[in-house]
Amino acid sequence: MRTFINVEDIGDLNLALAEAQEIKNDRFKYQHLGKNKTLLMIFFNNSLRTRLSTQKAAMNLGMNVIVLDVNAGAWKLETERGVIMDGDKSEHLLEAIPVMASYCDIIGVRSFAGLTDREYDYAETVLNQFIRYSGKPVFAMETATVHPLQAFADLITINEEWRMKNEECGMMDEESTAAANSSSIIPHSSFKKRPKVVLTWAPHCRALPQAVPNSFAQWMNAADVDFVITHPEGYELDPKFAGGARVEYNQMKALENADFVYAKNWSCPGVTCPDDYGKILSKDMSWTIDSAHMAVTDKGKFMHCLPVRRGLIVTDDVIEGPDSLVIPEAANREISCSVVLKRMLESNL
Amino acid sequence: MRTFINVEDIGDLNLALAEAQEIKNDRFKYQHLGKNKTLLMIFFNNSLRTRLSTQKAAMNLGMNVIVLDVNAGAWKLETERGVIMDGDKSEHLLEAIPVMASYCDIIGVRSFAGLTDREYDYAETVLNQFIRYSGKPVFAMETATVHPLQAFADLITINEEWRMKNEECGMMDEESTAAANSSSIIPHSSFKKRPKVVLTWAPHCRALPQAVPNSFAQWMNAADVDFVITHPEGYELDPKFAGGARVEYNQMKALENADFVYAKNWSCPGVTCPDDYGKILSKDMSWTIDSAHMAVTDKGKFMHCLPVRRGLIVTDDVIEGPDSLVIPEAANREISCSVVLKRMLESNL
Amino acid sequence: MRTFINVEDIGDLNLALAEAQEIKNDRFKYQHLGKNKTLLMIFFNNSLRTRLSTQKAAMNLGMNVIVLDVNAGAWKLETERGVIMDGDKSEHLLEAIPVMASYCDIIGVRSFAGLTDREYDYAETVLNQFIRYSGKPVFAMETATVHPLQAFADLITINEEWRMKNEECGMMDEESTAAANSSSIIPHSSFKKRPKVVLTWAPHCRALPQAVPNSFAQWMNAADVDFVITHPEGYELDPKFAGGARVEYNQMKALENADFVYAKNWSCPGVTCPDDYGKILSKDMSWTIDSAHMAVTDKGKFMHCLPVRRGLIVTDDVIEGPDSLVIPEAANREISCSVVLKRMLESNL
Repeated sequence: MRTFINVEDIGDLNLALAEAQEIKNDRFKYQHLGKNKTLLMIFFNNSLRTRLSTQKAAMNLGMNVIVLDVNAGAWKLETERGVIMDGDKSEHLLEAIPVMASYCDIIGVRSFAGLTDREYDYAETVLNQFIRYSGKPVFAMETATVHPLQAFADLITINEEWRMKNEECGMMDEESTAAANSSSIIPHSSFKKRPKVVLTWAPHCRALPQAVPNSFAQWMNAADVDFVITHPEGYELDPKFAGGARVEYNQMKALENADFVYAKNWSCPGVTCPDDYGKILSKDMSWTIDSAHMAVTDKGKFMHCLPVRRGLIVTDDVIEGPDSLVIPEAANREISCSVVLKRMLESNL
Repeated sequence: MRTFINVEDIGDLNLALAEAQEIKNDRFKYQHLGKNKTLLMIFFNNSLRTRLSTQKAAMNLGMNVIVLDVNAGAWKLETERGVIMDGDKSEHLLEAIPVMASYCDIIGVRSFAGLTDREYDYAETVLNQFIRYSGKPVFAMETATVHPLQAFADLITINEEWRMKNEECGMMDEESTAAANSSSIIPHSSFKKRPKVVLTWAPHCRALPQAVPNSFAQWMNAADVDFVITHPEGYELDPKFAGGARVEYNQMKALENADFVYAKNWSCPGVTCPDDYGKILSKDMSWTIDSAHMAVTDKGKFMHCLPVRRGLIVTDDVIEGPDSLVIPEAANREISCSVVLKRMLESNL
Repeated sequence: MRTFINVEDIGDLNLALAEAQEIKNDRFKYQHLGKNKTLLMIFFNNSLRTRLSTQKAAMNLGMNVIVLDVNAGAWKLETERGVIMDGDKSEHLLEAIPVMASYCDIIGVRSFAGLTDREYDYAETVLNQFIRYSGKPVFAMETATVHPLQAFADLITINEEWRMKNEECGMMDEESTAAANSSSIIPHSSFKKRPKVVLTWAPHCRALPQAVPNSFAQWMNAADVDFVITHPEGYELDPKFAGGARVEYNQMKALENADFVYAKNWSCPGVTCPDDYGKILSKDMSWTIDSAHMAVTDKGKFMHCLPVRRGLIVTDDVIEGPDSLVIPEAANREISCSVVLKRMLESNL
C-alpha cells in the first residue's frame, strides 16, 4: 500500500476488519516489520488522538518515530508555486518534502482545510504534493477532505458492537456463531440484519472542515450497512464521498430505529452553493443529540470522532451514558493505524 | 504501585533508598520490565528536569515514551463539568483522559496550581480526574500541591551526602561501615546522629506554588532526620504536608548547625488567612541565602530543586560553591523516577 | 572525539569521507554502539533538516534521543553571569547545562548568532558554556559562527558528484577506477583535476548569520578543491574561517568554469567595519543565481544548504533543474551526523 486516503486504498473491508481483529488480539505480533524503519509524522495542525495513536501504532510495529510540528520549532513552509519568498515563510514545500522524505520510510500528514478556497482544499493540494514529491508511502492523518484512519476505526467499532449485539440477541447464523467462538472476524453479511447507521449533523460554534463526515460517508457506503445522512438543507456532502447515500432532511425521522448514531458538525461543503463553502449555515440547537433523540433509535449507540463540544453536539448524559462509544472508537485508532502501517511496511519499501 | 503522589505511596523509605542505590549502580538492570510498555507524559506546564529525567528513566527501563504538551500541538482541554463548550477549549478532560489512557500503560501528569482557587488546587482536581478516569497507574510530575519525584530525589541526595559525611568523620557504627564497603544502602538509623535539615523560604519576584515545599516537608517528616521549617509569618504550609514539623520564624536561628539547607520560595498557602492564598506576602531580601547564612550552619550543604533565581533565592557564590548540591539533586531525579516506574511496571499492569 | 565544531575536529578528510561512504552503504552497521546511550538535542532556534537528520542518525546508531525546544515547553534560560534574575528568565544556563548533561551521553546544540554583539557571537559564548560545564561530548547543530554538520554533508556531496562526473568523463586514473568499482571512497587527489568550488553571496530579505558560509569556507579550504568566494564589498568573511581563500568581487568572473556553485546569503560579518556587524549591506538582485549565471560555469552544479528563499537566492528553474544538488546535500546530513555520532560513541564516553 503506497497511499492511504480513500476507502479503496484498504481493499476488501472484511479482510481489513479481520486484520484489525488479529492485531487487536496481539498488538506486537508484527514488531519485526518495523525494525530500522522510521515513521515521520508531519503536523500542520493540532492533534491529540491522531498524534498519540499513530505513535503507539508505529511503536507497536517496532518503528522509530519522528514527530514534526511544522508551526512549532520548524520553519514556516510556503505551499504555493511561483512566489517571491520575501515574507514570513522561509522554506518551500517543494524542497521541504523531498528533504523530509530522505530521513524516513513512511510519512503521515495532517493538514486541515483552510475553508476559504474550495478548489484548493478539494484538490488535496498539500497531501498530493507529499505524494508526488516524497517518493515514500504517505497516509492521511486528517487532511483537507478526508480522515480515513478515523473512518476505519469507526468501522471496526461498529463491527465489534454489532457482533456483540447480535450475539446477545441470537441473531447470527450457526456458521457465524462458530466463527465468533473462535475469535475470528464476522463479515457483516453473516448477520441476519444490516445495522442502520445514521450520520447526523449537529451545531457548533466554529466552522469545521468536512473531512470526518466525508470519510465516514465514503466508508459506510462501502460497508455492508444501511446508511442514512441527515443535516439541514445546504449541508449536502460532496458526491465524491457521499454519492449514493440516502439523505433525510428530517433528523428525527432519520434517527428512527437507528443502531448507530454518528454525530458530527461540518461547515457548508459548497456543493449546491459554492459561495457558501466553509460557512456556518445553521446553529439550530434542536439538532444537538440528547436523550429525546436517542429515544427514537433502536437502543442506538452514540458515536463521535472527538474532540466533541459538550452542550453543542451532544448532551452530557448521552455522551457519558452506557450507549456512548466515543472511547472505544478512539481506542480503535491505534488498531486502524496499525493495519495501515503494517500494510505499508509489508509493501516493497 | 498504582499512584505516586504522597510519601505513603512509596512505602518503607529505607527499602526505597536501597532500591534507588541498586538502580544507580546499574541503570539498565530492569530494562526487560518496560518492553512494549508505553509511558505517556502529559504537560500542562513547562518543564526541563522533569521532562528529561522522566524520559531518561523510562528509556532506561526499556519503555516507549510519548510526550504531550497540551498547550502546544494538542487541543485546549476543558477541565470543568457542566459547561457549554463554546469557548476556546475544544475537548473535555472527561473524554481526553480515557482516550489518552487507551494508548499507554503509565501516565505522568504535570499540572501546576492556578493559585487563585485554594479549594480547587488543594483538591488536586486535575490529577484526581486522571486517576479516576484513566484506569492506569498515574504519577505526579509536579501537580497543584505536590512534587514527590523531587522530594524523593532530595531524600536520596541527603542520604548519599550524609553517608559520605559520616564516613569521613568515622561516625558510622561497624555494621554500617561494612555495609557501606559493600555498596549497599545505609539506613539513616545507623548513623550516630540524625542530620539537621532546614527548609527555608526565600524571596522571589513571582508568586510560586507550594508543591515543592509541601512534598519536601512531607518526605522529611517521614524520614529519619531532624527537620525544621523557617519562613516569615503567614507562609505556614498546609498541615496535611507539614503537620508535626517544627517551625522557627527566626531564619538565622533555624539555620544554626544545619547539615542541609533547602531553600525555596513559595506564595502564601492560605492556611491562616485563606484570602491571602497565592499572594506574595514578603520580598524580604534578608532571607536570600548567602555566605553569612551558610556560616552559621554545621558545614551545611545548600539544596534547591531548580530552576533557581540567582540573586533572589541564593547568591552566586553559595550556589556555585563546593557545598552546593543542586546538580546532584537534579541528577537523582533520574533515579527517583526509575524507582517509581519500576514499581509501577512490577505491579499488575 | 569530544567536540565537533571546526574542520580540525574530524581529522583527516579522506578518512572521514571513506567513513561516510561506509555508513551510507549500511546505515545500521554501527547500531550496537548506541545501545543505552542517549543523545540530547537542545534547540534555542528553529530547525527542520538538523532536527530530523540528527534524530535519524542517532536512531540508526541505536541511540535514544531526547529533543528539547528551549523556547517551547521548557524554561527560558539566562545566559549572562552576575545578573539578578527578576525578569522572564527563570533558570540560569550554569545550572541548566550540568543538569541536562546528567541525563544524557552526547549533546547537540543549536544556538544562532544574535547578530547584535559580534564579540559575544564570535566567542561562541553559549556553545562554549556547554562544552565547559556539561562534561559531555558536544557538537554544533548550527551555532553562532559555525554549521559543521552542513559543511561536512556538502563535502560528501561534492565528493560523490565529482567522482560521478569524473567517471563519466574517464578522468580518473586506473587505480581510482578500480577503487570506484569496489565502492570505496575516492580521495580528491586521485582525480586529474580539482573541482572549482565557488561560494557566492546572494540577496535575502532578512539579516542572516554567517555560520553556513563560515563553515563551508573552512571545510573547502581544508579540502582538495579550487575554492573561490564572491560577494559584494563589505561582506568579507572572518579570516578565522575564510583565511587563505581567494576572493573575487566580480560574481560572473568568479563563476566562470565553476564545477560547483554554492549560493548563500549572509549579513555583514563586521570584519572591515565592526559597526556594520549583522547588517544588510546589499539587496542587489543581480546576484540572484539564475540560468545566466549558471551558463558561465562548466556544467556547474547548484548547491544551497536550505531553507532557501526562491526568487531571492535562486530562481525556480535553477533550483528545480537537473543540476541542482540541494536534495542530495540535505540527505547527506544524515550521513555526516552519523559519522560524528559514531566517532563520539567510539571515544571513551
